[in-house]
Amino acid sequence: MNQLLRRDAEFIVRSAIETVSPNGAVKKALTGMDFPGRVFLVAVGKAGWRMAHAALEALTVPLSGGVVVTKYGHVEGPLKGITCYEGGHPLPDEGGIQGTRAALDLTSGLGPSDTVLFLLSGGSSALFEQPLIPLSQLQDITDQLLASGAAIDEINSIRKRLSGVKGGRFAQHCAPAQVVSIVLSDVLGDRLDTIGSGPAYPDGTTCLQVQSIVKKYSLRLSDAEQTLLRQETPKVLDNVRTCIIGSVGALCDRAAQECSRLGYRPILLTDCLCCEAKEAGSFLSSVAATHAKRGEKLAFLAGGETIVHLGKSNGLGGRNQELALAAAKGIAGLKNTCVISVGSDGTDGPTDAAGGYVDGDTWGALQEARSDYDAVLANHDAYHALKRVDGLIVTGPTGTNVNDIAIALIND
Amino acid sequence: MNQLLRRDAEFIVRSAIETVSPNGAVKKALTGMDFPGRVFLVAVGKAGWRMAHAALEALTVPLSGGVVVTKYGHVEGPLKGITCYEGGHPLPDEGGIQGTRAALDLTSGLGPSDTVLFLLSGGSSALFEQPLIPLSQLQDITDQLLASGAAIDEINSIRKRLSGVKGGRFAQHCAPAQVVSIVLSDVLGDRLDTIGSGPAYPDGTTCLQVQSIVKKYSLRLSDAEQTLLRQETPKVLDNVRTCIIGSVGALCDRAAQECSRLGYRPILLTDCLCCEAKEAGSFLSSVAATHAKRGEKLAFLAGGETIVHLGKSNGLGGRNQELALAAAKGIAGLKNTCVISVGSDGTDGPTDAAGGYVDGDTWGALQEARSDYDAVLANHDAYHALKRVDGLIVTGPTGTNVNDIAIALIND
Repeated sequence: MNQLLRRDAEFIVRSAIETVSPNGAVKKALTGMDFPGRVFLVAVGKAGWRMAHAALEALTVPLSGGVVVTKYGHVEGPLKGITCYEGGHPLPDEGGIQGTRAALDLTSGLGPSDTVLFLLSGGSSALFEQPLIPLSQLQDITDQLLASGAAIDEINSIRKRLSGVKGGRFAQHCAPAQVVSIVLSDVLGDRLDTIGSGPAYPDGTTCLQVQSIVKKYSLRLSDAEQTLLRQETPKVLDNVRTCIIGSVGALCDRAAQECSRLGYRPILLTDCLCCEAKEAGSFLSSVAATHAKRGEKLAFLAGGETIVHLGKSNGLGGRNQELALAAAKGIAGLKNTCVISVGSDGTDGPTDAAGGYVDGDTWGALQEARSDYDAVLANHDAYHALKRVDGLIVTGPTGTNVNDIAIALIND
Repeated sequence: MNQLLRRDAEFIVRSAIETVSPNGAVKKALTGMDFPGRVFLVAVGKAGWRMAHAALEALTVPLSGGVVVTKYGHVEGPLKGITCYEGGHPLPDEGGIQGTRAALDLTSGLGPSDTVLFLLSGGSSALFEQPLIPLSQLQDITDQLLASGAAIDEINSIRKRLSGVKGGRFAQHCAPAQVVSIVLSDVLGDRLDTIGSGPAYPDGTTCLQVQSIVKKYSLRLSDAEQTLLRQETPKVLDNVRTCIIGSVGALCDRAAQECSRLGYRPILLTDCLCCEAKEAGSFLSSVAATHAKRGEKLAFLAGGETIVHLGKSNGLGGRNQELALAAAKGIAGLKNTCVISVGSDGTDGPTDAAGGYVDGDTWGALQEARSDYDAVLANHDAYHALKRVDGLIVTGPTGTNVNDIAIALIND
């Protein structure tokens, strides 16, 4: 392994993630912000606790109340004046629903001079939910849609209307209070009506579209459900200001700056990568191999959220580990080249690793370890293969969640 | 469709292919070349006839004899002093073997002042072959290797030893005559021991490696075959000079120049792309989408040979058409962005198209045409989908074969 490349690659990625961590970004967003009246805090999503913690430190006015709704295990301690709830993710459960109810209670009957500081992060679609029908029925409709091959946008446009908080309805509920929405984006392209299903953003879908989806997939619906699907979501919200404080684009930009500082000329390929992890690794390794012999220190960056189709595999891994491992073959033997891929949340798939690292020596090391490369990739078992060649990147949970970054570094 | 982008994209690709056509490139390579004695010409591969035709025009000395071995249908007319043979591809047959025998006869018993002008292009592994065992036995061994999941490099190291011309043996046969090897590369990375199985290049594989492959896959071999596999291929050839006159790298470089001339800043991503066609299209569209709104005229170039796993599909298409179609979704709505992908031989898959073109309007046009995008891609039926939206690129056979190029163009 090339220890210099490994050190540089890890340093770049860790530094970039640090700057999109909620702590600094929330504080920066709140600096100098004035509030005319009372301030209530509602923080939801996987980064909810950390964002609330940062806000408490940054606010110069006292809170009149606060609620955090985050994932199980993500509450790191008590927060003064704030009640913390934990719930299920990716499937919503009673824990999240209870927290959401508390948030709705807290923000009921507010006046026009009041402010709801709404801190939104990834995972909120499941964690921040007030279903207007029983959860089991919601699941049944989702199952029907999935089975008919409906697109995720179609599923979401239906689910927004079966929820009391999604599709702008939470902001509508807070009116006439002002909502300051501070968003840590985990959605490629940062579509605000999509992040956490857009609780504080005007909904772009219409009842007409929803009716055509119902017809297209011949959904079986109760009378109550049919009534809900005819109720329109808010199209205008004049009580909301929104500020995106972190995104995969920002992660890439910051990583590019770190590359520059270390002398690598950064070339941003994309911040909306969404193809298969394995093929992304192959593509990125082809890019690296093409430029490896030009005698220049280069960094190619690709941010986004790749996908893995598990099929019938029984391996252990994650999309970042798989991307990295799939890049090993294309850069085999290139002593000055590495590829790193890491999830900004520090958790890649159901593993204790944040991602993977490979360089020109990895292919040979895998051969020596008698690892059957193609079989490992087909079985999505990157974790064990990378572990054998010291290719796992382990950061622990980082407290942020703005998707992934992959970088090919070339030393001169 | 954006007619300006379409015109620019086609112009860039056609101009680049023109410059890697055998005609100009062979002439350029032969200009000023001196020969001390007699000159014999042997031209093999899909571009064999065209390369021989160009050489005849460029040579200032008379030929003492010549043989062309190319694919059926690729002889375009008689060539003075040269006998033309046609054979099977991708499976070798008696036609190619007969032509190869003629080439070996022509180049037997030459002296040290004689020169063999060896013009090599893609397809030669099948077309230029003197099997040392009957074709049926050769096929049996290949079948055994394929069934055991052997890698292509492993298969080729075996096949080289069962051939009288592969793995440097043709150049060895020509000695003590000088061999001037002029190569049109269709192999990513231009590995000279791989192009046409390297008839005039030292072989990098050893008998020791071959024995371990025989053992690894428990190959069933006759005594004669076992004897052949113990005979070493040449490791040094001091009678050969090699010149690569065309490659996918040159295709990319020339396309980049054409981009510059039209005002697009070219960024070469890679010249050794080898991932799945569909995922390459997705990746390239992500790159384009990321940079589409920066107000700069840009061109991202990726050359190589993507792959398509057909599975049980029954659609019509080719890897370039599939790459282009797969890019349509990622650039949907981007009025200033297009993706083109074209095979330099003008033949993409079993179709009359050379490749495909999509731009920001294509996605909408496909929806209007009620084309089920995901189903079309899954069924590898890009030809029909692109045809409906005027997205096919048709050039006819170009006479060259240096793999494919895909370009994302962004207008400001």
